[in-house]
Amino acid sequence: MDPRRFTYAFNVRLHDTDAAGRLFFGHLFRHAHDAYETFMTQVGLPLERLIREGELLLPLVHAEADYHRPLRQGDRVQVVLTIDEIRARSFAVAYRFEMPDGTLAATAKTVHLRINRDGSPAAGLSDEIRNAILPYLHEDHPQ
Amino acid sequence: MDPRRFTYAFNVRLHDTDAAGRLFFGHLFRHAHDAYETFMTQVGLPLERLIREGELLLPLVHAEADYHRPLRQGDRVQVVLTIDEIRARSFAVAYRFEMPDGTLAATAKTVHLRINRDGSPAAGLSDEIRNAILPYLHEDHPQ
Amino acid sequence: MDPRRFTYAFNVRLHDTDAAGRLFFGHLFRHAHDAYETFMTQVGLPLERLIREGELLLPLVHAEADYHRPLRQGDRVQVVLTIDEIRARSFAVAYRFEMPDGTLAATAKTVHLRINRDGSPAAGLSDEIRNAILPYLHEDHPQ
Amino acid sequence: MDPRRFTYAFNVRLHDTDAAGRLFFGHLFRHAHDAYETFMTQVGLPLERLIREGELLLPLVHAEADYHRPLRQGDRVQVVLTIDEIRARSFAVAYRFEMPDGTLAATAKTVHLRINRDGSPAAGLSDEIRNAILPYLHEDHPQ
Repeated sequence: MDPRRFTYAFNVRLHDTDAAGRLFFGHLFRHAHDAYETFMTQVGLPLERLIREGELLLPLVHAEADYHRPLRQGDRVQVVLTIDEIRARSFAVAYRFEMPDGTLAATAKTVHLRINRDGSPAAGLSDEIRNAILPYLHEDHPQ
Repeated sequence: MDPRRFTYAFNVRLHDTDAAGRLFFGHLFRHAHDAYETFMTQVGLPLERLIREGELLLPLVHAEADYHRPLRQGDRVQVVLTIDEIRARSFAVAYRFEMPDGTLAATAKTVHLRINRDGSPAAGLSDEIRNAILPYLHEDHPQ
Repeated sequence: MDPRRFTYAFNVRLHDTDAAGRLFFGHLFRHAHDAYETFMTQVGLPLERLIREGELLLPLVHAEADYHRPLRQGDRVQVVLTIDEIRARSFAVAYRFEMPDGTLAATAKTVHLRINRDGSPAAGLSDEIRNAILPYLHEDHPQ
Repeated sequence: MDPRRFTYAFNVRLHDTDAAGRLFFGHLFRHAHDAYETFMTQVGLPLERLIREGELLLPLVHAEADYHRPLRQGDRVQVVLTIDEIRARSFAVAYRFEMPDGTLAATAKTVHLRINRDGSPAAGLSDEIRNAILPYLHEDHPQ
């Protein structure tokens, strides 16, 4: 069965760009996380609940991005989000940033680790988290 | 007696600028607050202590800025911070953003209100706060 | 005749908040400008065109905001944008940040000045700009 | 011969943190690039010159970071920057984010590609760039 597809769209704003006229690379991660927050809310795991319950239990431990073509102010970008990998205590999220004509502008990946309140790694992802994100697991990476 | 003078310096970075080649106006407030944080630490009121003690008790209730000349990447800027006004439950901080030749690039102002933990306005600024900032009160605004 | 009403909505994201658990004040201006960019595109004056034509001819010369209640991650905010004032060479934009229940969370204002390419103030706003924004002029401020 | 060591320091500010009380991951890249800009200026390649000469000829094509421990407001962080690799048309910069006690808080890496004005990959890094960064090449990666 094909994994479910989650998409999120945004416009590149003036404050996203820098004096070189293109998106400042670091801001791509802000948009990636906006997509991730929206995704987590949709699958029933809104970050504000996790944080308000006392602690963010899924800190980001790795992030990376590849930039294929410049993004400029006014560009409309669609983010296609999939779960790239689910491991015992962590999961990886993959992002494709696409232009309206389907051109790939950038890709990104973030890795989220389940920890205990004292900061130590948790025994494992909770079933709630695992079940929520599993339908979005990319087919090339079977669990 | 002249008020004490607090200064803070920063460089305009690529991510501060936008595609128009100048500092994006909203980022000026980030630099103003950096100066404010540094000032508060110097006068013995580090924000991290206030926040870690349970709540930020001095939320910002007003901010404003005037932009006199464009700031560009690589510019060195000095921020001159003074206390503009001290009222019963709030105080105002004034910022002058100056170029190395003394030219005024921008000014800003922020107003900070003492509140209780439940969000209601506090009876007044604590003596600790009042005494810490009083030496920096601008002379045109006697208490 | 009532002025036209322009609205823009956004969600408060994790990166909008700070360790005090609420929107960092400076980020409100980023959202205000997002609303302004969207507005300018709708009225036929997309900023990317102005910038790509060689220079941003409408630099922001003043900004201010008042914060009425804290905004937290996950909050849905509606921005109501009106033109507050039109002068010979500048115009002011007013923003109301409203919660879903209509509560006012914050207000903001930005002033934009028409300049020439060399940085000197222009003779006046162009008719194109004036005509585009006039329908949104707030009724309490007749031209 | 040991490579030269370039260091850059910053304080974690309130706007760097989020409601979870720690540095928002994406902001690490802003600080990494601040270190890079300062480094480039020191080695005689200030970015503002490259950009003002008409175009940023060294766009960032890859970025990554690993987060080892949370950074909080008020933390003083030292960035140790080295050149990780020099290839025909690109170079990689490595960053170590260290606490005052020497603890490693995070690492990051950025890859910069020389391109022509039309966006096509350049024939190679210029001698000016190669000679400027070579003294900082990490010893584990001989050219």
